[in-house]
Amino acid sequence: MYAIEVREHVMIAHSFRGDLFGPAQALHGATFVVDVAFYRPSLTEDGVVVDIGRAGDALKRILVPINYRNLDDLPQFSGINTTTEFLCGHIHREISAAARAGDLGPGGEGIERIRVMLHESHIARAWFEGPVAP
Amino acid sequence: MYAIEVREHVMIAHSFRGDLFGPAQALHGATFVVDVAFYRPSLTEDGVVVDIGRAGDALKRILVPINYRNLDDLPQFSGINTTTEFLCGHIHREISAAARAGDLGPGGEGIERIRVMLHESHIARAWFEGPVAP
Amino acid sequence: MYAIEVREHVMIAHSFRGDLFGPAQALHGATFVVDVAFYRPSLTEDGVVVDIGRAGDALKRILVPINYRNLDDLPQFSGINTTTEFLCGHIHREISAAARAGDLGPGGEGIERIRVMLHESHIARAWFEGPVAP
Amino acid sequence: MYAIEVREHVMIAHSFRGDLFGPAQALHGATFVVDVAFYRPSLTEDGVVVDIGRAGDALKRILVPINYRNLDDLPQFSGINTTTEFLCGHIHREISAAARAGDLGPGGEGIERIRVMLHESHIARAWFEGPVAP
Amino acid sequence: MYAIEVREHVMIAHSFRGDLFGPAQALHGATFVVDVAFYRPSLTEDGVVVDIGRAGDALKRILVPINYRNLDDLPQFSGINTTTEFLCGHIHREISAAARAGDLGPGGEGIERIRVMLHESHIARAWFEGPVAP
Amino acid sequence: MYAIEVREHVMIAHSFRGDLFGPAQALHGATFVVDVAFYRPSLTEDGVVVDIGRAGDALKRILVPINYRNLDDLPQFSGINTTTEFLCGHIHREISAAARAGDLGPGGEGIERIRVMLHESHIARAWFEGPVAP
Repeated sequence: MYAIEVREHVMIAHSFRGDLFGPAQALHGATFVVDVAFYRPSLTEDGVVVDIGRAGDALKRILVPINYRNLDDLPQFSGINTTTEFLCGHIHREISAAARAGDLGPGGEGIERIRVMLHESHIARAWFEGPVAP
Repeated sequence: MYAIEVREHVMIAHSFRGDLFGPAQALHGATFVVDVAFYRPSLTEDGVVVDIGRAGDALKRILVPINYRNLDDLPQFSGINTTTEFLCGHIHREISAAARAGDLGPGGEGIERIRVMLHESHIARAWFEGPVAP
Repeated sequence: MYAIEVREHVMIAHSFRGDLFGPAQALHGATFVVDVAFYRPSLTEDGVVVDIGRAGDALKRILVPINYRNLDDLPQFSGINTTTEFLCGHIHREISAAARAGDLGPGGEGIERIRVMLHESHIARAWFEGPVAP
Repeated sequence: MYAIEVREHVMIAHSFRGDLFGPAQALHGATFVVDVAFYRPSLTEDGVVVDIGRAGDALKRILVPINYRNLDDLPQFSGINTTTEFLCGHIHREISAAARAGDLGPGGEGIERIRVMLHESHIARAWFEGPVAP
Repeated sequence: MYAIEVREHVMIAHSFRGDLFGPAQALHGATFVVDVAFYRPSLTEDGVVVDIGRAGDALKRILVPINYRNLDDLPQFSGINTTTEFLCGHIHREISAAARAGDLGPGGEGIERIRVMLHESHIARAWFEGPVAP
Repeated sequence: MYAIEVREHVMIAHSFRGDLFGPAQALHGATFVVDVAFYRPSLTEDGVVVDIGRAGDALKRILVPINYRNLDDLPQFSGINTTTEFLCGHIHREISAAARAGDLGPGGEGIERIRVMLHESHIARAWFEGPVAP
């Protein structure tokens, strides 16, 4: 299985509900360095998994609605703890939809799986890996 | 599949037996930066794989008996080459037992797999990935 | 000149005032990975710049009041843009005061300069370096 | 499953054919930091996946024909876009053949899978993972 | 002294003349991850060294003429070994001129020194640090 | 000022004497990733600070006597705490002597300063920077 991976980042504020989170129940924030890997069993005629430029552009578009925002204020996340692992799943759903819609350009049609990894600090990260199909 | 990963480190001395190891047959040492990833198919009600603080604390406790030690002196490793890959397996057994014992807190009961990765230098690392079940 | 450097991190929310900041005028957040370097012209009798454990503990204490907080709510930062570079200077003042107060343990009395570096993402960081003396 | 991974690098020139590649159609170059991971279900009697020194040496030998070269000039790549992902597959074929030929030393006979990862910058990387068997 | 640093990268081909360079006399290439640090003794009224966005944009503009190019073909480098350290000096001259021309926006007028660092692999990097004044 | 930096590593055992060191008074070990930077005010006729290959080779030679060793057993370190910062100074003295002896090849004669940095973990490092002249 082949894969390519591109990197972006977002800087967000949020808070968590639940005793589990201790001091992170207060409004705080995070830089999430976002790695998205696209898996394809073979290469295209051009010799790529997918164009790395288009993949990066698609990722940037998906991150716009959350970048420089307080996630607590976004209706789409109402009543949800926007944990690192939840956001991995959220971005996975968005980038998978983009892949299915053809936004990744040539090669995008053969992407089978996607992994979204968020680094929240030098000692902690999370990821979600799953099929592109809904 | 979701995953979260936490990082710690240990600083140990040890030696190896066997011609394969060349100069590493002498007593030497290593810093092992230890990454432990916990895999869970879905998130808890709180929206996490497992609490990252409790996971980190469990890892710290497991590393105490080997940190700042000469592994050649520890009875539990008698007659064993404590290679990087062996230690990955060892820590995997310990952290899996901790997961089964409930030491990871909420979410720990649904952890299916764990990966333990040890970085021994900027150019070499090893890992063991396997189920939590014994 | 000798130096040792220790690493911690904080996760904060804040917003900026001024057109210069564009979308960062909205409430957002950051993970700051914090590196603090202590410079000393010679080593102590023990052979250290300063005890790395005590240095790390002093840094942790200094970060407590800002970690997991919305910096816009803290009286000490009222009317201030808590930019990455401003926070470098702020932490420098705090850790320098700790050094002068003897909180770094043996060796701390000879620290001449301190550098505080904050990594805000994989592509941007800031630092302040200056004398320990006020 | 156990794994060990070793790191090397190459510095090459090449160009791509196809509109997909935009400015990368011109002759340019890359540093590829190369990580090769060897997967083995159990450890050898010595307690290793494979000797890390021999694995590294085998990788170095495989990289010699492409290091410090313009890949456009190499007959073996005639008519091929030597993309990052293509080169992952190429190196995978070479190191798998080395494993089958016994070049990895003790433990090499039990290697089941190999992953070859090429980092082309701080924001992009590619990999190929597959069985050692041809 | 305060500093902020931004990161970009270029992917170039080139060759070197001189026995010193051994196999690097052949046409090969490199990814250079480029870090540029701007030093200013105090912060602006906005609380910054210089706007990180404008600094990054200025750096991108300076890199355009060399990115995805064979440096051997560029008239400006005729008869010159475009070594990593030479390119550090070249980019330093260009970004210093941009600073003097006001391209960095508010704060740019007080930048005293600039450091340009090029990472050529995981084991080698070079830098040039000097005043902004010509 | 120009600089180039090369990276190597050593894996050693040692112990420390003094209450300051707590559990590190026991025999333990470390991987030290070693970065050595060479500073030169101008480039040679070839366009380099010093040949990066010769610099790396000189560093490797200097590290041989300590690599894969228990530093407590080496007569040269008798009665000395071989702390990270002490070892920075030790390697600085050795590589400076190599520079003065001409072991760095062309360019080595103009090296003014050298910085030796040892990374002992992902959260701690030390360095010594000083003139090449004894």
